[in-house]
Amino acid sequence: MKRKLIYADHAATTPLLPEALEAMLPFLKESFGNPSSLHGWSKPVRSALKEARATIAACINAEPEEIFFTSGGTEADNWAVKGSSGGLMVSAYEHHAVLNAAASEAQRGRSVAYVRPNMKGFVEDGKLAKAWKNGIGLVSVMTANNELGTRNDIVNLARYAHKKGALFHTDAVQAVGHVPVDVQAWDVDFLSASAHKFNGPKGIGFLFIRKGLKLAPLLDGGQQEGGNRAGTENVASIVGMATALKWNCDNMETNSRHLKKLTMGLSRGIAGFYPDAVFLGSDSGDQLPGFTSVAFPGRSAEGLLHLLDLKGIAVSSGAACDSKNTQVSHVLKAVRVAQSVARSTIRITFGHENTEADVDATLAALKVALASTGI
Amino acid sequence: MKRKLIYADHAATTPLLPEALEAMLPFLKESFGNPSSLHGWSKPVRSALKEARATIAACINAEPEEIFFTSGGTEADNWAVKGSSGGLMVSAYEHHAVLNAAASEAQRGRSVAYVRPNMKGFVEDGKLAKAWKNGIGLVSVMTANNELGTRNDIVNLARYAHKKGALFHTDAVQAVGHVPVDVQAWDVDFLSASAHKFNGPKGIGFLFIRKGLKLAPLLDGGQQEGGNRAGTENVASIVGMATALKWNCDNMETNSRHLKKLTMGLSRGIAGFYPDAVFLGSDSGDQLPGFTSVAFPGRSAEGLLHLLDLKGIAVSSGAACDSKNTQVSHVLKAVRVAQSVARSTIRITFGHENTEADVDATLAALKVALASTGI
Repeated sequence: MKRKLIYADHAATTPLLPEALEAMLPFLKESFGNPSSLHGWSKPVRSALKEARATIAACINAEPEEIFFTSGGTEADNWAVKGSSGGLMVSAYEHHAVLNAAASEAQRGRSVAYVRPNMKGFVEDGKLAKAWKNGIGLVSVMTANNELGTRNDIVNLARYAHKKGALFHTDAVQAVGHVPVDVQAWDVDFLSASAHKFNGPKGIGFLFIRKGLKLAPLLDGGQQEGGNRAGTENVASIVGMATALKWNCDNMETNSRHLKKLTMGLSRGIAGFYPDAVFLGSDSGDQLPGFTSVAFPGRSAEGLLHLLDLKGIAVSSGAACDSKNTQVSHVLKAVRVAQSVARSTIRITFGHENTEADVDATLAALKVALASTGI
Repeated sequence: MKRKLIYADHAATTPLLPEALEAMLPFLKESFGNPSSLHGWSKPVRSALKEARATIAACINAEPEEIFFTSGGTEADNWAVKGSSGGLMVSAYEHHAVLNAAASEAQRGRSVAYVRPNMKGFVEDGKLAKAWKNGIGLVSVMTANNELGTRNDIVNLARYAHKKGALFHTDAVQAVGHVPVDVQAWDVDFLSASAHKFNGPKGIGFLFIRKGLKLAPLLDGGQQEGGNRAGTENVASIVGMATALKWNCDNMETNSRHLKKLTMGLSRGIAGFYPDAVFLGSDSGDQLPGFTSVAFPGRSAEGLLHLLDLKGIAVSSGAACDSKNTQVSHVLKAVRVAQSVARSTIRITFGHENTEADVDATLAALKVALASTGI
């Protein structure tokens, strides 16, 4: 009997929704026209782009013309950071797409102020106030952290930035499709998303740019995206992204309830057989659905990951997007987790397709792995 | 009976090769892992990336580690231009991805020198010499022009740039997969390609960067592509690109012979019933395979395009990547084509799947269209 593989690393990437693939196929087959062409082949692709843009906009309460397609979250983050002007203020536990883009801007002479999250994993507006400098043009704080699953109070943070005359960007890559995102209620100016984090294809994402605002283009060239982002549109992937996002938004409550049940079962199980386990980012009771970041102080996260992997269970240690780096992640450093905790932290992130049986199997495997690895 | 549609706009975009889609599907289904993950799900995707990189490298006589995946030709061009240093020298009929990237660099203070192609549609190294200025760090001249199909003598141009101590980039978007490309023999430093121009998917391309050279990253973030281009890899599309490129390289001679027959038939047919037709870019006898740029002086290209479209035949006027702009294209201006010629120029670009029957149908439709449109 073939063992069932359990994928529990949804914060790193998610399986493509079969409905999204179905929606993509016509654009990978007969409807291959260039949206910029003047002949009939452009019509189906142009309407598909229009529809996808409207679908995506509706999911985050934006206007269609505020959605700009990019090649993913990294491009969206780079665009927001590099296309803005004035000084930058970013949190210290942002994704590297924001942090390294800011560092690159610093080399070009822009000032960059860093704000530390608190030890629970949140960025407080008071910290923005303390670190404030004259001339800051853009504040960038992520909606939810990719290693901790903690969700920031974006409304408050955006309000503070605006009060000081700065614009506000949020990297919502881990949040979009999983928790309600409302660019109007939040009053953010720019928001990044990546399709492969919500069951869409890899290599596609979008940046929300509030109407009336303008970022310097990152990619110059043709007149696509209203002259703001050049390059022939990745039609199939855009359609797949819209389909996946709509499905996730339509099923958000059901998925969320299901995922909360799974993580509840997981954390109870772990606490039951390993009372010293430390659950990171769970203090607010408002972690991303399906998200568990747990440390087994003194144990090696890498060892645990490897033993689970041998049993066909995929989890991650550190930030999966940058896991070749085996140092303690910048996120865990930023929230001042002790070395012994940091080095033993694994991230178990379930998706809607996981089951309670998956939780049981994960718990069983984890118990064995913990018993067989020394301190 | 349903009329057969004839797609003759392959310079704008090409249909995805069925074999490429087949190769992509596993990565749009079960093999969805993040290549950066440390668990077993990353293995198939990592090997797929490795294999695709080697396949692509072999097609242009590069080393695998010289191939960097991008979101398309526009990103590759922007990266080469913006990531380089020193003054820029570009030809005046480059794609907008190069021209507008150079203009954007000019705003940041870099000098940009423009070189005009000659009236036949070629950039001569003598022109580079005449326009040369101290401090030029990068010369960028396209391998083949997207409106004329003319192919430049890249060996000569790269040699001149190197002699003057500058690096050399070529936008080979229209050439890769269609004519032999050899980065060693050509001795170019950077070369851009886009998959959807050679029967690969949209939204993916690559930049060749010669070993030992370094461009400042355009997208900062994770450590993908050796830290040079951040962002989770678009695995499925990369695999599709490699499959499509290999197929085109393996079948290049056959395709080329077939396409030359088609364009020969087309131009003879046109000359037969419309002796005043002007064939652009055909002087060297070395136009891209399948490429015809033809003017019917005094007629409206747009009118012709529309009449052909009504008959189910897709061709283009001006540059299809920017066809919403109905002014005379910058390419036709650069080669100093008379207004009456420029406004009447249509581009008919066949692909390997076109047949002689398609040529006959195009000729018949064109004849009727020319008869029914006044001067």
